[in-house]
Amino acid sequence: MWGGRFAAGPSAIMREINASIPFDKVLWRQDIAASKAHVGMLEAQGIVLARDARAIADGLDTIAAEYATNGVPENWDLEDIHMVTEDRLTQLIGPVAGRLHTARSRNDQVATDFRLWVRDTIDSIDLSLAALQEALVERAEEHAATIMPGFTHLQTAQPVTLGHHFMAYHEMIRRDRSRFADARARMNECPLGSAALAGTGFPIDRDRTAAALGFDRPTDNSLDAVSDRDFALDFLSCATQCALHLSRLAEEFVLWASQPFGFVTLPDALSTGSSIMPQKKNPDAAELVRGHSGRIVGCLTALMVTMKGLPLAYSKDMQDDKPPVFEAASLLALSVAAMTGMVAQSSFRASRMREAAEAGYATATDLADWLVREAGIPFREAHHITGAAVRLAEERGVALDQLTIEDLTDIDPRIDSRVYQALSIDASVAARTSHGGTAPDQVRARVRDARKALRLEESR
Amino acid sequence: MWGGRFAAGPSAIMREINASIPFDKVLWRQDIAASKAHVGMLEAQGIVLARDARAIADGLDTIAAEYATNGVPENWDLEDIHMVTEDRLTQLIGPVAGRLHTARSRNDQVATDFRLWVRDTIDSIDLSLAALQEALVERAEEHAATIMPGFTHLQTAQPVTLGHHFMAYHEMIRRDRSRFADARARMNECPLGSAALAGTGFPIDRDRTAAALGFDRPTDNSLDAVSDRDFALDFLSCATQCALHLSRLAEEFVLWASQPFGFVTLPDALSTGSSIMPQKKNPDAAELVRGHSGRIVGCLTALMVTMKGLPLAYSKDMQDDKPPVFEAASLLALSVAAMTGMVAQSSFRASRMREAAEAGYATATDLADWLVREAGIPFREAHHITGAAVRLAEERGVALDQLTIEDLTDIDPRIDSRVYQALSIDASVAARTSHGGTAPDQVRARVRDARKALRLEESR
Amino acid sequence: MWGGRFAAGPSAIMREINASIPFDKVLWRQDIAASKAHVGMLEAQGIVLARDARAIADGLDTIAAEYATNGVPENWDLEDIHMVTEDRLTQLIGPVAGRLHTARSRNDQVATDFRLWVRDTIDSIDLSLAALQEALVERAEEHAATIMPGFTHLQTAQPVTLGHHFMAYHEMIRRDRSRFADARARMNECPLGSAALAGTGFPIDRDRTAAALGFDRPTDNSLDAVSDRDFALDFLSCATQCALHLSRLAEEFVLWASQPFGFVTLPDALSTGSSIMPQKKNPDAAELVRGHSGRIVGCLTALMVTMKGLPLAYSKDMQDDKPPVFEAASLLALSVAAMTGMVAQSSFRASRMREAAEAGYATATDLADWLVREAGIPFREAHHITGAAVRLAEERGVALDQLTIEDLTDIDPRIDSRVYQALSIDASVAARTSHGGTAPDQVRARVRDARKALRLEESR
Amino acid sequence: MWGGRFAAGPSAIMREINASIPFDKVLWRQDIAASKAHVGMLEAQGIVLARDARAIADGLDTIAAEYATNGVPENWDLEDIHMVTEDRLTQLIGPVAGRLHTARSRNDQVATDFRLWVRDTIDSIDLSLAALQEALVERAEEHAATIMPGFTHLQTAQPVTLGHHFMAYHEMIRRDRSRFADARARMNECPLGSAALAGTGFPIDRDRTAAALGFDRPTDNSLDAVSDRDFALDFLSCATQCALHLSRLAEEFVLWASQPFGFVTLPDALSTGSSIMPQKKNPDAAELVRGHSGRIVGCLTALMVTMKGLPLAYSKDMQDDKPPVFEAASLLALSVAAMTGMVAQSSFRASRMREAAEAGYATATDLADWLVREAGIPFREAHHITGAAVRLAEERGVALDQLTIEDLTDIDPRIDSRVYQALSIDASVAARTSHGGTAPDQVRARVRDARKALRLEESR
Repeated sequence: MWGGRFAAGPSAIMREINASIPFDKVLWRQDIAASKAHVGMLEAQGIVLARDARAIADGLDTIAAEYATNGVPENWDLEDIHMVTEDRLTQLIGPVAGRLHTARSRNDQVATDFRLWVRDTIDSIDLSLAALQEALVERAEEHAATIMPGFTHLQTAQPVTLGHHFMAYHEMIRRDRSRFADARARMNECPLGSAALAGTGFPIDRDRTAAALGFDRPTDNSLDAVSDRDFALDFLSCATQCALHLSRLAEEFVLWASQPFGFVTLPDALSTGSSIMPQKKNPDAAELVRGHSGRIVGCLTALMVTMKGLPLAYSKDMQDDKPPVFEAASLLALSVAAMTGMVAQSSFRASRMREAAEAGYATATDLADWLVREAGIPFREAHHITGAAVRLAEERGVALDQLTIEDLTDIDPRIDSRVYQALSIDASVAARTSHGGTAPDQVRARVRDARKALRLEESR
Repeated sequence: MWGGRFAAGPSAIMREINASIPFDKVLWRQDIAASKAHVGMLEAQGIVLARDARAIADGLDTIAAEYATNGVPENWDLEDIHMVTEDRLTQLIGPVAGRLHTARSRNDQVATDFRLWVRDTIDSIDLSLAALQEALVERAEEHAATIMPGFTHLQTAQPVTLGHHFMAYHEMIRRDRSRFADARARMNECPLGSAALAGTGFPIDRDRTAAALGFDRPTDNSLDAVSDRDFALDFLSCATQCALHLSRLAEEFVLWASQPFGFVTLPDALSTGSSIMPQKKNPDAAELVRGHSGRIVGCLTALMVTMKGLPLAYSKDMQDDKPPVFEAASLLALSVAAMTGMVAQSSFRASRMREAAEAGYATATDLADWLVREAGIPFREAHHITGAAVRLAEERGVALDQLTIEDLTDIDPRIDSRVYQALSIDASVAARTSHGGTAPDQVRARVRDARKALRLEESR
Repeated sequence: MWGGRFAAGPSAIMREINASIPFDKVLWRQDIAASKAHVGMLEAQGIVLARDARAIADGLDTIAAEYATNGVPENWDLEDIHMVTEDRLTQLIGPVAGRLHTARSRNDQVATDFRLWVRDTIDSIDLSLAALQEALVERAEEHAATIMPGFTHLQTAQPVTLGHHFMAYHEMIRRDRSRFADARARMNECPLGSAALAGTGFPIDRDRTAAALGFDRPTDNSLDAVSDRDFALDFLSCATQCALHLSRLAEEFVLWASQPFGFVTLPDALSTGSSIMPQKKNPDAAELVRGHSGRIVGCLTALMVTMKGLPLAYSKDMQDDKPPVFEAASLLALSVAAMTGMVAQSSFRASRMREAAEAGYATATDLADWLVREAGIPFREAHHITGAAVRLAEERGVALDQLTIEDLTDIDPRIDSRVYQALSIDASVAARTSHGGTAPDQVRARVRDARKALRLEESR
Repeated sequence: MWGGRFAAGPSAIMREINASIPFDKVLWRQDIAASKAHVGMLEAQGIVLARDARAIADGLDTIAAEYATNGVPENWDLEDIHMVTEDRLTQLIGPVAGRLHTARSRNDQVATDFRLWVRDTIDSIDLSLAALQEALVERAEEHAATIMPGFTHLQTAQPVTLGHHFMAYHEMIRRDRSRFADARARMNECPLGSAALAGTGFPIDRDRTAAALGFDRPTDNSLDAVSDRDFALDFLSCATQCALHLSRLAEEFVLWASQPFGFVTLPDALSTGSSIMPQKKNPDAAELVRGHSGRIVGCLTALMVTMKGLPLAYSKDMQDDKPPVFEAASLLALSVAAMTGMVAQSSFRASRMREAAEAGYATATDLADWLVREAGIPFREAHHITGAAVRLAEERGVALDQLTIEDLTDIDPRIDSRVYQALSIDASVAARTSHGGTAPDQVRARVRDARKALRLEESR
């Protein structure tokens, strides 16, 4: 009746579908910290006696030591990390363990534990994103003047520098960190003390537990506190956007490492080689980072769908909040680390990049701009004149700056020989000094700003 | 530089991001079956000698026995199930093991293994869905005449029977099975022999390996065969739709089990109780089934995003095809089993249902239909007359069939006393004999059809 | 060859797939504002002459007046709002119009326009969310002491107040507004002047255009500025979470309006009636709000998938950023307004709610808490004693507070008659005075805080 | 209170959120066809008189002619296409129009109309996919022997032919058509006659209406029939997978059109040019097809989320089924047409492709295979020998077939001069004659099969 694997009938199914200990055991540090904060408050408020509180706290310390050494026992009959821990506490200190659960419920307990875990994870991801920013900034400075083709529509458009390109990703990661920081600030309210759904009649001090656990304040509504998973969705939204940024950088590494591009030699440690094609280095790490972005989007989708249309207060559906968050956190951590390695350790083939930038009349815009600036021609008209020049160069099979001045004045008599200064890719890049432009000095200025910001952020 | 957990630098990251053995080890049965089919064909075609083929096949049998007993060793350095197995084969039989990989590559090997796994999983899900259908059909017959309110907009609309309600879900599951069957038929082509991406120059016989593995035919294009994950997406699409159906049934159990509805008493084995509120039975299993639908949607989304925009042929991103499929398969199997238990073992409170169906003027449509049928009034006009009757009943605080015949003829003289036959909920339900309608006889007829279809399908 | 509707061949297809004017015309106000800021800066920097700048600005004003009166002409040949407007400008003022496009490109232009539109939309949504908060706070105060059953697992758990329930949604909306505010602050950097992808050689003043358009600063990297759609994803993430909150509130209205619950009478203006079932009011608005959450999740998913794996800089795929944002914004605005109406104008049936709260031994936890507090029993033991009491009451078919004191002391001699004070639902609710608890005074205190916060936010 | 645009209060909001006529008016053809089938059946069953049925049918014909000429009037007060049409019918023929709605309800009516629309759309998409297959097959035959690099991980792996590459997409489209065909067959059951949710007491003949509308049979359960949107989800699942295939082909065109690849010159009609960079052809159509895949995934997600957790029977949320389906259908039609144009009209630069295939030691596998075949060496060992040969060639800066026979025999004495026949890219490609391999003859054989299948399918 139950399909093959459920020979034992509904109880076996219930046991399997209900047990969260296989995944929520990773919350053990947070669970013990929250219990210690809770019992400390119960004691301070006179709700439990000092000696009972001490026994409980000591027992929790013992359990923490056990978990750290031996791992958390996966006892499915006890369902979750909270019951596994309370059960062990009862074994250790007897019935007094039962006083720990005064004025709380699993609903506020799990909301607190999970929030703490997400907050810790944000802190750890923030550190790793800072490391990625450092790698980007370092390579950007090194290649502030390394010319490569800038693409739009993956067509060569205008020359840019590799340093500028890296700093574009620095910007994305900067926004990612700001997004995580906003999420962290918003979630930093403590649900503990909301009890099952309605609050409690015990004279608890929620400010005290909130402070003990590093929260800014207690939550303001008990129904909301046990039913809210915004903090998990915020985390997943941030993770998704970060993963999408990494997918773009990964795509570029895959392109750049292809034979037709040939812009980059990947670090051995982050590629797989082929014993029969020594020149071949499969950009596995980049591909996996790109692929992982799909799975992280899937994690966000999962929780959005799960939360849709749930009435208040706690429903068991919410137990499905954790697997997507744990999976996304792990995939993102790995992706950030892998891309940091790719950025820091790849070798760039400046000559191939330069060669590609020289092709494709990438300085045509510079000719148009010169006509506007020096001859006062409206941009749209300058644009048309430039078109004629490029067509002529293409017919001749030469670069734009290989047309003679006679060729150019035939096209438009307002052109003079000063124009050649504008037509090299070096000149083109050097000219783009507008704020945020690709001129090497601009790139270096942005690197300096970034260094300053990173250092400031570190010392906070 | 690499964030805390990657102290060892890029190699450690690469090892972790690259290893698929932690999840793809579940493919071991399929991997060994495919290797045996391959070496059998190589022998038959004279590509390897009979004694070498025998050594390889025996070695593979030994490995299968080892895995069945001790599990698959998770050697991250060997990356995946294919290399772990080949490595063990070499330990067992020496360099001749190297002949197994003639005329194949990991690209067609993994495509074959994974397809086999998905096909096996479909077969197992199909069996469990048939069990759910049986449970639905059985309860439908039992409750073919048990009246409950039929809802639209969750408002009481017309009386229906509980049996009819169950048969609605039978229809959904019937479509789910047909969907899985279509997917299975479409995926049943064998990629083995496509090699890395271009096919092979060895004189292999792809029809033979296809037949040996139960495939209908070999795939027709080697580039497609190693890059295609349609079968995985098909599986996830089917799983998602099935999970959404289950989420709807789960929602109904949650509603019906609430105190205000009170339509159902859940099986103990699929609920969690409360030691202090004995009447309370939390519908945990139903809630988890509903929640799991979110995660299964997330799995589908994950693979869709991962596959988007990948050029041919194999890219490493595709390694991210397996975790979502494995997760969805496991969540769906559990959900189907849990709902089968809920359907088979819940007790329904017929009196509460009947009482709810009596409230709310649920037979008003029957009055309108009577006016059309017996008095020849256009439906829209009959509809308005009925409105007046119901408003009067509401003012009086009585049911529709408690209005006197005078009341009714005052509203419209074409009404006569035969109308009362139409106004009870029993009459209403009994009247709806159109094909697929809620009349108990209709429900029983559909149950008979379903029984016939289920039995036929079983004997194929 | 092209399928029926593309009789004219590829040019017709290209025209249709390429034209964004059907949807991007809504950007006209932002496009004209950005062009005016740009030309003002060009003049101030001496890049265009004052009289040319004046002609351009006047022409743009004329066009704005035309659009406001007659709408934007949907000329597909001109592709998008930018070219439609520039073309009209040329008609009005001749070739000098061509000077407007100096030192900019469509890439930075569309990034600027769209950012402005999203920013404006956030401001408008913020206002409507504040209105929803006000409605919630008002009803919360009105019903601070109206008792209803509090549910977990949709099972009656403990009594709460309706006001407390409303304040839970107030908290969610508060977080939504904070989320939109964070997104607004993060996106408030001006891309204008990034040109096609590399910046420009013209001596532009990006701080000036940024300030003129209300941005905090110019963006720091031109490649990023034209390729970044974080602001659109941020908007969609915020909209999705807000929509999910509304889907939960909508679900509650649908439940509460059902006959079995009967907690609410919906406002006529936000329901559809039935001419034959006058008591029936379909909660259409709530259902559509719940349904719309699905479509808004779809919009977010759409843009995530579209952005995945795009290399720098601008790719045409990004043109698909606008339809999902426009659709989500419109669906969300409608949803917020509909829920505001539902909250403000529904009538609540206090007696039905109270009756439901009385059922189900909802004060059992209060008995357990009393045992802990008054008899010093560990919570877990108190919990078991309470279970025995409730089982007895259930056998007798009475409420908990209808057991005699003898019944109770038989169960545990430490119980005395003071216990009855704890067992009414009024006492239960009144006791839960912990911060954020459901006690009416707590609810009123939170209402006061909310009023203060709303007023403060209004006056900023 | 309602936010700016809802000055008129809740009624105005309700009107806007409730009206589906802005989008469901596209169903007018299906709505009229279904009404005509319905009234024909009512007449045949004696439920309406022949002269009334005639008046209704004539009236419906008149309305159809009006709609075809003038479009459907968007009267929001009448909510939807069904009421707009019925209202017009009443204007035309008076109260007898009211007889049309006998024995049906809007719930079964909309389910029928929408199913018909989806079925028609599948037929039209199937035709356009056949056209795409034809284009692929034609170009495949033309380029059956045009050599290009085959990539794995976007690294040059082995030479393949362009024809083989096209046939890979032919396979994907073949599966897409089979998927749409399965969905069509599954949905081809007629809900009409299910009435509001429970069936009807009128003696209707559902087989007759089903047959009249081209359905295979009536649906078997009325509750399911009005609540089921599987057919819409099936359509969206098929559309999504097809769109993902097109996104992959689009990605290849974008890559191939880039300057570093230079494999293709896009058709003018499906690119945008640049007046100043004549060599530049932006692959806009391909980029938009790639982008559209994101929006189509979003449409599927939208409906999955909307359907999640809805209890039976009809809920208003289901009105949100149509916008995603209409949007996906339109985007997919455009995408298929655009890719058909790209395939049919692009020019391929065979010399660039060949040159790229020559680079990268793409025939190394052929050397290993030769060693296995001719020297009987186990594949894994042959693989290592080949590695040594390629490393030597790389040191010398020569191709593999430019190593001398002495060089090769130094590496392994079992190599002899026959090996050179295996080392050219032409030999490599020609050798891969396994079923589905890239050998030109294999490609031509597959083209012949495809032609045969396409013709057969056409004549069915």
